[in-house]
Amino acid sequence: MPKAIPDIVIGRLPIYLRALQHMGMEGRQVTSSQELGERLGISAAQIRKDLSQFGEFGKQGTGYNIEYLSKQLQEILKVDRVWDVAIVGAGDIGKALANYSGFNQRGFRIAMIFDSDPAIVGTQVGGFTIKDSRLIKEELANSHVQVAMIAVPAGQAQAVGTQLVEAGIRAILNYAPVNLTVPPEVHVQHIDPSIHLQRMTYYLA
Amino acid sequence: MPKAIPDIVIGRLPIYLRALQHMGMEGRQVTSSQELGERLGISAAQIRKDLSQFGEFGKQGTGYNIEYLSKQLQEILKVDRVWDVAIVGAGDIGKALANYSGFNQRGFRIAMIFDSDPAIVGTQVGGFTIKDSRLIKEELANSHVQVAMIAVPAGQAQAVGTQLVEAGIRAILNYAPVNLTVPPEVHVQHIDPSIHLQRMTYYLA
Repeated sequence: MPKAIPDIVIGRLPIYLRALQHMGMEGRQVTSSQELGERLGISAAQIRKDLSQFGEFGKQGTGYNIEYLSKQLQEILKVDRVWDVAIVGAGDIGKALANYSGFNQRGFRIAMIFDSDPAIVGTQVGGFTIKDSRLIKEELANSHVQVAMIAVPAGQAQAVGTQLVEAGIRAILNYAPVNLTVPPEVHVQHIDPSIHLQRMTYYLA
Repeated sequence: MPKAIPDIVIGRLPIYLRALQHMGMEGRQVTSSQELGERLGISAAQIRKDLSQFGEFGKQGTGYNIEYLSKQLQEILKVDRVWDVAIVGAGDIGKALANYSGFNQRGFRIAMIFDSDPAIVGTQVGGFTIKDSRLIKEELANSHVQVAMIAVPAGQAQAVGTQLVEAGIRAILNYAPVNLTVPPEVHVQHIDPSIHLQRMTYYLA
């Protein structure tokens, strides 16, 4: 049954979860689809419809218990556990990701970071010793890492992606500004600031 | 008429443009909706349908001229010009953005960078002198900047966003892991690696 839920609905759940966790940190206990909708610029009806695909999380008129709904969404998204993540590329973006403290509360933990530049292999970043990219397969084979982030130049990204897939990675967040081709069982999300900016300039005068 | 085109279609155009520009750099001259579709994991029919909303860009059987279609998409997305961009936040992400050389070919140019930390205001990053965040309004009033990127901690993002909007910014790329509330005429895109990762863990075993 989870298979039948559209990607676009799954894509909104992390946004709901993030808003609920912020409300929780503000000390709030109860919210409503109206309030969530106003915070997120999504209609209350859409939020109710999305959540109803997974069960009954609130009572008509009393709203949602923030802690309970957060836990349910974490379970649905499988971030009620911690996923180890490998980073490939220790340039500016890779370093920023290795240093970023925001992953821990969201279900992720950086486990290792690779680079192909002999000048920085062996040096430290974010508490990790940068490993040689030639060891990706071997290092990942000895781990349970299924999730990776690619932060290498565009020209190297497809080769790195292919290596990661061969090493058992099943989810890739790609910061290189190029589309990755992977087998259908592997999930890829792309982050490219130019793409996001171009989506907005269309609307500017 | 452009108003009637769904956001989701607009959102795919930059992806088509990026793929076409890569093909152009590979020295290619002609492509097809089939080939583009295979590269991007989007159906050829979808690509033809999306493009047909803007005119007739290819002839049945002869495919698309890559340079011509790229130029048309640049015009539609308004990146046939260069947009000045302000960055707020000179931490790891802000610095990576200030140093990133990939914006220039895509229609953007970093114009200035701000931070609120007196210890780094006045220092250099990516060829820019970091300006004091208290001067955002004043500096932007003397410029034609309409596009900004926010790379400050979550707790400061809404205040920065509000300041930017008051200073005339109309498009914001927000790297802070929090939803921004802005007036309806302002466009916001969010980049949050945890959100992107959570969209994929749902599908993992």
